[in-house]
Amino acid sequence: MLSRLYAELEKRYDEMVEIRRYLHQYPEISFKEFQTAAYIRSFYEKLGIPVRSQVGGNGLVVTIKGSKPGKTVALRADFDALAIQDEKDVPYKSTVPGVSHACGHDGHTATLLVLGKTLYKMKDDIEGTIVLIHQHAEEFAPGGAKAMIEDGCLDNVDAIFGTHLWSMTPTGTIQYRSGPVMAAADRFEITVKGSGGHGAQPHKTKDAIVIGAQLVGNLQQIVSRRVNPLESAVVSVGSFVAENAFNVIADSARLIGTVRTFNEDIRNDIEQEIGRIVQGTCLTADATYEYNFYRGYPAVVNHEDETEFAVRVAKDVPGVQLLEETEPHMGGEDFAYYLQHTKGTFFFTGAKPKNVENPYPHHHPKFDFDEHAMLIAANTLGSLALNYLEQNKTVKEAAKMK
Amino acid sequence: MLSRLYAELEKRYDEMVEIRRYLHQYPEISFKEFQTAAYIRSFYEKLGIPVRSQVGGNGLVVTIKGSKPGKTVALRADFDALAIQDEKDVPYKSTVPGVSHACGHDGHTATLLVLGKTLYKMKDDIEGTIVLIHQHAEEFAPGGAKAMIEDGCLDNVDAIFGTHLWSMTPTGTIQYRSGPVMAAADRFEITVKGSGGHGAQPHKTKDAIVIGAQLVGNLQQIVSRRVNPLESAVVSVGSFVAENAFNVIADSARLIGTVRTFNEDIRNDIEQEIGRIVQGTCLTADATYEYNFYRGYPAVVNHEDETEFAVRVAKDVPGVQLLEETEPHMGGEDFAYYLQHTKGTFFFTGAKPKNVENPYPHHHPKFDFDEHAMLIAANTLGSLALNYLEQNKTVKEAAKMK
Amino acid sequence: MLSRLYAELEKRYDEMVEIRRYLHQYPEISFKEFQTAAYIRSFYEKLGIPVRSQVGGNGLVVTIKGSKPGKTVALRADFDALAIQDEKDVPYKSTVPGVSHACGHDGHTATLLVLGKTLYKMKDDIEGTIVLIHQHAEEFAPGGAKAMIEDGCLDNVDAIFGTHLWSMTPTGTIQYRSGPVMAAADRFEITVKGSGGHGAQPHKTKDAIVIGAQLVGNLQQIVSRRVNPLESAVVSVGSFVAENAFNVIADSARLIGTVRTFNEDIRNDIEQEIGRIVQGTCLTADATYEYNFYRGYPAVVNHEDETEFAVRVAKDVPGVQLLEETEPHMGGEDFAYYLQHTKGTFFFTGAKPKNVENPYPHHHPKFDFDEHAMLIAANTLGSLALNYLEQNKTVKEAAKMK
Amino acid sequence: MLSRLYAELEKRYDEMVEIRRYLHQYPEISFKEFQTAAYIRSFYEKLGIPVRSQVGGNGLVVTIKGSKPGKTVALRADFDALAIQDEKDVPYKSTVPGVSHACGHDGHTATLLVLGKTLYKMKDDIEGTIVLIHQHAEEFAPGGAKAMIEDGCLDNVDAIFGTHLWSMTPTGTIQYRSGPVMAAADRFEITVKGSGGHGAQPHKTKDAIVIGAQLVGNLQQIVSRRVNPLESAVVSVGSFVAENAFNVIADSARLIGTVRTFNEDIRNDIEQEIGRIVQGTCLTADATYEYNFYRGYPAVVNHEDETEFAVRVAKDVPGVQLLEETEPHMGGEDFAYYLQHTKGTFFFTGAKPKNVENPYPHHHPKFDFDEHAMLIAANTLGSLALNYLEQNKTVKEAAKMK
Repeated sequence: MLSRLYAELEKRYDEMVEIRRYLHQYPEISFKEFQTAAYIRSFYEKLGIPVRSQVGGNGLVVTIKGSKPGKTVALRADFDALAIQDEKDVPYKSTVPGVSHACGHDGHTATLLVLGKTLYKMKDDIEGTIVLIHQHAEEFAPGGAKAMIEDGCLDNVDAIFGTHLWSMTPTGTIQYRSGPVMAAADRFEITVKGSGGHGAQPHKTKDAIVIGAQLVGNLQQIVSRRVNPLESAVVSVGSFVAENAFNVIADSARLIGTVRTFNEDIRNDIEQEIGRIVQGTCLTADATYEYNFYRGYPAVVNHEDETEFAVRVAKDVPGVQLLEETEPHMGGEDFAYYLQHTKGTFFFTGAKPKNVENPYPHHHPKFDFDEHAMLIAANTLGSLALNYLEQNKTVKEAAKMK
Repeated sequence: MLSRLYAELEKRYDEMVEIRRYLHQYPEISFKEFQTAAYIRSFYEKLGIPVRSQVGGNGLVVTIKGSKPGKTVALRADFDALAIQDEKDVPYKSTVPGVSHACGHDGHTATLLVLGKTLYKMKDDIEGTIVLIHQHAEEFAPGGAKAMIEDGCLDNVDAIFGTHLWSMTPTGTIQYRSGPVMAAADRFEITVKGSGGHGAQPHKTKDAIVIGAQLVGNLQQIVSRRVNPLESAVVSVGSFVAENAFNVIADSARLIGTVRTFNEDIRNDIEQEIGRIVQGTCLTADATYEYNFYRGYPAVVNHEDETEFAVRVAKDVPGVQLLEETEPHMGGEDFAYYLQHTKGTFFFTGAKPKNVENPYPHHHPKFDFDEHAMLIAANTLGSLALNYLEQNKTVKEAAKMK
Repeated sequence: MLSRLYAELEKRYDEMVEIRRYLHQYPEISFKEFQTAAYIRSFYEKLGIPVRSQVGGNGLVVTIKGSKPGKTVALRADFDALAIQDEKDVPYKSTVPGVSHACGHDGHTATLLVLGKTLYKMKDDIEGTIVLIHQHAEEFAPGGAKAMIEDGCLDNVDAIFGTHLWSMTPTGTIQYRSGPVMAAADRFEITVKGSGGHGAQPHKTKDAIVIGAQLVGNLQQIVSRRVNPLESAVVSVGSFVAENAFNVIADSARLIGTVRTFNEDIRNDIEQEIGRIVQGTCLTADATYEYNFYRGYPAVVNHEDETEFAVRVAKDVPGVQLLEETEPHMGGEDFAYYLQHTKGTFFFTGAKPKNVENPYPHHHPKFDFDEHAMLIAANTLGSLALNYLEQNKTVKEAAKMK
Repeated sequence: MLSRLYAELEKRYDEMVEIRRYLHQYPEISFKEFQTAAYIRSFYEKLGIPVRSQVGGNGLVVTIKGSKPGKTVALRADFDALAIQDEKDVPYKSTVPGVSHACGHDGHTATLLVLGKTLYKMKDDIEGTIVLIHQHAEEFAPGGAKAMIEDGCLDNVDAIFGTHLWSMTPTGTIQYRSGPVMAAADRFEITVKGSGGHGAQPHKTKDAIVIGAQLVGNLQQIVSRRVNPLESAVVSVGSFVAENAFNVIADSARLIGTVRTFNEDIRNDIEQEIGRIVQGTCLTADATYEYNFYRGYPAVVNHEDETEFAVRVAKDVPGVQLLEETEPHMGGEDFAYYLQHTKGTFFFTGAKPKNVENPYPHHHPKFDFDEHAMLIAANTLGSLALNYLEQNKTVKEAAKMK
C-alpha cells in the first residue's frame, strides 16, 4: 500500500507545484484567509470529498474513514501568509502588495491537499480513520490551532503528525527531536512611569530613562542567575523608547521584549521574576509602572514514542536521505496545542533551494524553498498515517515491537 | 538727572505696554525676526534716532553719544520668540499659530525702546556714550550675541548690563549674583552601534539596548564620582530610542542628552569623560559608536565689581523693594558672550503676575508676566547707565569709593 | 564467568566494607596521600600481584594480563580525601583532624581493590588485559589523572570505565549520559586598580568599588547575551573584597569567581569575553586591572558507543534496579583527561544512605554513603571489563550487535 | 586694650610653643585625654584661676568675669589626639606609640591657655564675661561638644568663636565663610542578605554580590539625579566585602560608606533615599537586608552676622595678612553643635610650615604646622572676644554699625 501511495504522489507532484504556486500568488494574512479557505473547500468538494469548514474560524477538516474500524490519525497543514512584501523575482510571485507566503505554508497546504486526495482514493484499503487538518492563522497569536481543537478537530484522534518545510536544511533531510523542539514565545511590555522635567533639574524628576536602563541591566540576571544553567531561556528587550528633546528628563520609558522557554515552570518563573524586578527597580526611584506579560504559543513538546515511531517510518520513505536530531528551535509554533491535547510529533522537512549556498531564512522578503521537498513531506506524512493505522494499535505498543 | 529719567519713564509706561502687546501679537522665532527688526528700526527712525541694522544678522544697535566724552556703557534686550503655541486667553494673544513670546523678550524690547527714546532725549546732559543692543535669536544656539559682537556691537564698550524679566519672582525684587549665574548648556548625541538579530538568538548579536542601558548607568558616575562635589554639574540623557519589534534584538540605540556646568574646566572634563565612558562601555560588548558633543552657550559669569555696582545702584531705584542674591540658574543665556568680551552683569527683574500664586514658568504655553516690571527694569537699566557714566571712571574705581 | 565474578564479589563484600572503613579513618588530602598509596601497594603485594607505584605522583597501576591476547580495558578509582572536618558520629569516623573522605573516594578504592583481587584470580579465563588505575589527587587541580596519563597509565588501553558513588541517588540506580556529563570548572581572578582617596573627595579618585560593581553587572551579560541559549554556562563572582574604612574611597577591589561550561569553544569564548568586559569597564573609569583565568579540569565528555555499551551491560548486573539518563553535573572531575585520551564512559552509582530522606551532599562534613553500593559498583565495573574483553572487538562493533 | 593684649601675647609666644611641644609629646586619644585634662586644670589652678573640670566628660571650662556686667562670649579649643603613629623627626615628637597630635589640637590648646591667662589678667578692664571651653574628643563621634553643651558650657553665652590651625594655608591667612563651612559626615552600613550556594548553581541562590553590585550602581543616582545640582553632597561606598571561595555564591555582602552634606534637608533625604534604594534593589532579587545610618556631626553652619563681624575684627589683627572666603570643607567638626545652640563662627587660621611647598595634610603621620600661627590665632580670638564685649551689644547691632 505504501508503494502505491508513493507512486501516486510522485505522479501528482506537478499538481502539488501548481497548487503551491497558485496559493503563493494569492496569499492572505492570518485570520483573513477567506479565499484560501474557500480554495481548499472547493478542492475537496470538486472531488466529492466531504469537508467541514469554518472549524474554529477559517479552519477546515476532512475526515477519511477507512473501510474497517481502527485508530484515528491526524495530519496538519497551516495555510496563512505573512504581512511581508514579496521581493522575489519569480513568475509565481505574490500579487498582493505587502503580503506573501514567506514561511512556506503554501507548500504545506499543497502537500496536504494532494496527499489527502491520494489517501481518499485509497480509503477502501485503510483500517481506521485519517483526519486532515487545514489550519488557519499559525503566524499570529492566539493562532488557529487552539480554536480548531476547541471546535473538535482532535476529537477521537489518537495521534497527530505535522511538518514544516525548512529552507535552511538540504532537501532529503528530515530533522526530528523528542521532547521540546520549539520554544514558548512570549511577549512582555513594561512602561516605566517616572516624572519628567527639565534636563537641568534632575532632583525635581524621577528619570524614567535611568530607571529603564537599570531595568534592562537587572533583567539580564534572570538568565544569568535565576534559570537552571542546564535549561534554556532567553529574555530580550527588543525595544526601548523614551523619545524626548535633549534638554528634558523623560517622564516615561517603554520597554518591549520577548521571553523564550521550553519548560513551563521556567516560563512561569520568568513571568514572575520580571514582575519582581520591575517592581523593585521602580521602587528604588519611587516610580510606578505597568507590566504586562502576553503568552504566545507554548513550547512544542514532541512525544517520545511517536517521535521514535516517526524516525523508524521515515527511514524508509523515498527521498529521505538523512535523518538527524535537530537542536531545539527558539521560535514558536501553535502545533504545540495539538501535542498538549494528543500524542504526536512535529518534524522538519529539509527544503533548501537547489544551488543556493546561503538560502534566505523564513520570514525574509526573498524566502523561497525547494518544491521537491513537498513530495518528500507528502510521502512521509502519508507513510506515517498508513503505518500508524496498519499497526492497528497504539503507538506505545508499536514502539515496543521494534 | 535720575529723577528726570524716572519721571519720563513713568509717563511713558503706557507706551511700553502698548509696544509690548503689539510685539506679543506678532512674535517671530529665532533668526526669522524680520518684521520685529523692522519694527524696532522704524521706532527709532521715526524719532530721528540713527540706528544700525542687520548687525550680525537681524540685530540692531543704537548709539547715543552724550554732549561730552566719557565712558561707554551698553544695555541689551533680546527680541526673538519661541515655537510654542500661545494658550493664554488675553486680548494681546499671539496671532501667529505655534509661535509666542513665552519668555518675555517682548517685554525686554518694549523696555529698551522706551528707555532708549528717553535717554536719547537726555543726551545733552550725558557725559559719555550709551549703546542700545537689540539682539535677535537668544533662544536658539548659536544665538545672535556672538555674531553681533563679531559685527562690532561691543566695540569701545566699557561695561554692559542686561536683565531678564522673571515671572517666578515677585515684582519689586531684583535678583543678582556675582560669578556664574546661568549655566553652560551643551548637548550630546551618542549612537551605539551593535549588531541586531532575532530576539531568541542573543549570542549572534551585540545588543545595542543592553549596551545603551549600561551607558546610562555609567554616565551617572560623572556627577557622582568625577565632579568636585562643591561644584555644580548635570548630565541628563533626555532621549533613549531603540524602537523595534518585540522579538528583535536592537541593532542600534540613540541617546541624546544635555550637560550643564558653570565652570569651563568641568565642562571640558565632562565632554571627555562621556567620551571615555562611551568608548569603554561599547568595548565591553565589542560594539562601535558615534559620539558628538555640541556646545551651547557658555556660562553667564557676572563680574564682581559691576555686580556690586549694580546692587548699590538698584537699591535706590523706584519700584525696587527687595535686592536678593539668586541661586545660579541651570538654564543658558547668550548674554554669556558679552561678559566674556567686556565687563558687566546680568540680573533678574521680578515680574510675577499679580494675584497669581503659582505663575506659569517661562516657556510654558500660558506664560505671562506683570507688565509693571518693565518700568522697574527700565528704571534700573537707565539708572545703571547714567550712574556708570556719571562717575566718569571705571567701575573698579567706583566700587572702591563706597 | 560473570556469575562467578558476582558470586566472588558478594563473598568479599565484608572485606570491601572493612577496607573502606579503614581508609575512612585515615584520610589524606590531595597530593599528600602517601600512606594510602602505601596501603594500596601493600594490599596487592601481599597477594603477589605486581603493582607499579609512584605513577605520575602517588598513583598506582596494576596490570592484569589474561591468558590470551585481546583488547585492553582500564578501570579507575581515586583515593584522595578532603580538607573537611568529619562531623559524623560513626565508629569509622576520621581520626585526622580537619581531613575526611567526604566525597566517597574511600569507597571507590575499596571497590577497585576487591574487584582487582577478584579479577586477578580469574585471569586465566580472561582474553585480553585489565588495567587498574588507582589515582591520587582528584580533588585538587591540576589533579592526578593528567600526570598518570603522561606517565603511561593509558598506554595501549582501548577503553576506560569509571564511576562515582553518589549519595543523592538511591542505591540500585545507575545514572549514565552520553556526551558532556560533568562541566569544565575554571577560576578567574580580577583586581581592579583604581586610585583611592578620601570618601568626601570622589573627584580625586578612581573608585574601585564602583568599577568592580559595574563589572559584576556586566559579567551577567556573558550568560544572558553571549552564550547560545541552547548551551549551558555559568559565570559566578564568588568573592568581592574591597575592605576599607567607611570614609575612604577604595584603591582596589578583588573579584574571584568560577566559570562552568561543557563546550570547549564556549569555554574559550568566555575567557576572552571576561577579558574584554574587564578591559572596557576599567576603561570607562580610566582604571587599570589584572585579570587571570585559571583552567581547572575540562568537561567530562562520555563517548557515545561506550556509554551505550555500558547501559546494555549494566542492565543485567545484580543489584542494578534502574538505569536512568542523568542531567549533566556542573561540577568537575579529572576523569575528563582519560576520556580525552581514550574511549570510555563515566557513570554514577547510586549510594543514598538507607532510611535517609535528605542525604548530606558530597563535601558536607556529615557526608556518608550506603556501603552496599560498593558491591553494585564492583559488579558493574567488573562486568564492563569482562564483557568488553569477551567481545574481543571494539566497542563500536559491539554496539552494533545489539 | 587691644594693643595691650597683642603685646602680652607676643611676650608669651615662647610659653605657647613650650606648652604645645609638651602636649605634642604626650598625646591622648579621644575620650581618654585624662592627663591632658589634668595638665590644663593644673595650668589654670597654678595661676589661681578657677576652672570647672569634668564638664561633659574630660572637658574643662574657665569663666573670666569682667569688672562690669555685659555680654558673654565663648572661645573654644579642642585637645584630643589621634590614633596615628608620629613619623616626624623632631625633638618634640610624640612619645606615645601609635598616638599623635596629627591634627593640631595641641596648638589649639596652647593658644587658648596662654590667651586665657592673658585675658584673666586683663579682667578688671573687661565689661562682660569670657568663657574658655577646653573641649575633649573632637575627633571621634559623638564627640565632646554635645556633652559639654548639655553640661552647661554654653549657658548664658551670647556668641562663640573657634578656629582651626590649617597647615595647607599660608600663615597670615584667615579663611572665613558664612553659612555651611564644614560638612555633616555620616556613616551607613548595609548588609545584603541573599542566599548562598555553589558557584555552579546560581538558580538555587540569591547572589548577594550581584545584588550588592547593583546597589553600588544605584547609589550613584542619589547625587546624580536626586540632589539639587546647586547643592553639594557625596555618597561613597568605602568598603564592599563578600569574601568567599571562588566556587561559591555569596550568602551576604557588607557595604559601608559615608554621606557628606551641608544641608540638613538633603541629609535627611539621602538617608531615606539610600533606604529606598536598598529596599528596591533587594526586592528585585527577593533578598533581605539590614540598613543602618549613623549620624556623625552635623554641618558647621556659620552665622552671617558673626562671620561678618569676625572679618571686620580680623582685618586689624597683627599678623593677619590676608582674609579670604574659603570653599566649604567636606570634613566634619563638632563645633557644629555650638553653632546650633548659639551664634558664632568657626574660621581657619593658616599655619603652613615655612619653606615647605606641599605640606603634609591633617591626619598624616608627618603632619606639622607653623607654630607662629598660634600667636595669630590667639590675637584673633582675643580680639574677637574683647571687641565683642566692648560693643556691649548684640553682634547684630554691631554689624549694622559699620
